[in-house]
Amino acid sequence: MHEEVPDEEIDRQRALYGPLAQSVRELADAVIRTEVDDEDIRIAQAEIEAITKRLRERQLEGPYGVRFNSAGRSRAWGNAVVGTRNPVAPPLVVEHESSGRAWADFTLGAAYEGPPGLVHGGVSALILDQLLGEAAGAGGKPGMTGTLTLRYRRGTALGPLRAEAHIDRVEGIKTYAVGHIADDEGVTVEAEGVFILPRWARPHFEAEGSSAPSRFE
Amino acid sequence: MHEEVPDEEIDRQRALYGPLAQSVRELADAVIRTEVDDEDIRIAQAEIEAITKRLRERQLEGPYGVRFNSAGRSRAWGNAVVGTRNPVAPPLVVEHESSGRAWADFTLGAAYEGPPGLVHGGVSALILDQLLGEAAGAGGKPGMTGTLTLRYRRGTALGPLRAEAHIDRVEGIKTYAVGHIADDEGVTVEAEGVFILPRWARPHFEAEGSSAPSRFE
Repeated sequence: MHEEVPDEEIDRQRALYGPLAQSVRELADAVIRTEVDDEDIRIAQAEIEAITKRLRERQLEGPYGVRFNSAGRSRAWGNAVVGTRNPVAPPLVVEHESSGRAWADFTLGAAYEGPPGLVHGGVSALILDQLLGEAAGAGGKPGMTGTLTLRYRRGTALGPLRAEAHIDRVEGIKTYAVGHIADDEGVTVEAEGVFILPRWARPHFEAEGSSAPSRFE
Repeated sequence: MHEEVPDEEIDRQRALYGPLAQSVRELADAVIRTEVDDEDIRIAQAEIEAITKRLRERQLEGPYGVRFNSAGRSRAWGNAVVGTRNPVAPPLVVEHESSGRAWADFTLGAAYEGPPGLVHGGVSALILDQLLGEAAGAGGKPGMTGTLTLRYRRGTALGPLRAEAHIDRVEGIKTYAVGHIADDEGVTVEAEGVFILPRWARPHFEAEGSSAPSRFE
């Protein structure tokens, strides 16, 4: 969605909503790990419900979506991987190169667990889908995920991690991207994906001086 | 981890922690969508931080892990997909058949968004990894994810969904499972995965009257 908001206002909103979402990420971690008394749990729950009720007094009707302004700034603040405003997102801060590379350093805690002490295999898939899609977009070849294949070499321990991706090749409307997640000792999960330019977006990419979005996901 | 807790105590804990985690899921949705004044945002953040601090007064040192008692009840309450106690998890309530089938009906809201109004492709991967793994485990052939391949047929709208999976075939330590996510109009994402019995668990499965875990993820 196009929403004409000046860059300064975007920065102001980020400074407001980013720390709020971060406080809920910390709360989620505490909810998984707390061992306080039952009565304290019940009090916490009642307080949380009261906060939610106040925040809902005025709210968007549906999900956040993705918003663009004329300056080319986009906000995918509800995104499940990179959403600044989404407590479910770690969130990843992804860096890009226009050659079609994307990478991120991040830390995953208790909320992303699968096997004991390890990152859920599906969380690795979630992160790699985002990274590969961002690499495709960074290279000017965005698309929706068509296929995604993950190879798990070994367990990924919860903690500090790095994800990287790059465009392998482009064939018409299909962009092939590859990437991985690594810990201090090397690669733990590898991925390859095909990203397909949606039909509705194709005219934008045929026009000169395109202002089409750099990614869809 | 083996933790000798009677079934009644497990039920009691579920009734305590389940609603607490659910209150944080609602809060996360409200944080993404709220449009209340800046001052109200700041007050909410301060209150959330105070609750977290109290919950952390006594807590587990690390992630929740997976706990088993002698009656065969397991608790993967920190799991990123099914974790009752994990606000990041939707959470899915997965049903099983010992023939090697697993399925779940669930609803995904604003926190699971990728493209505007659609489920993040990686969230579909996350859910299918869990479902395929549960199908393998339900059929007595559990494993860690070896490979996982997703085919995205079309966008999956946020809202009510169903995921299903079953064992396709077993070859020694490898279990091949397939599954999909569907909305009212049919299948949106298909998956196939190979689940591999970890080396350390193999002796359990060679022994008679095994009490090995039914899944690892």
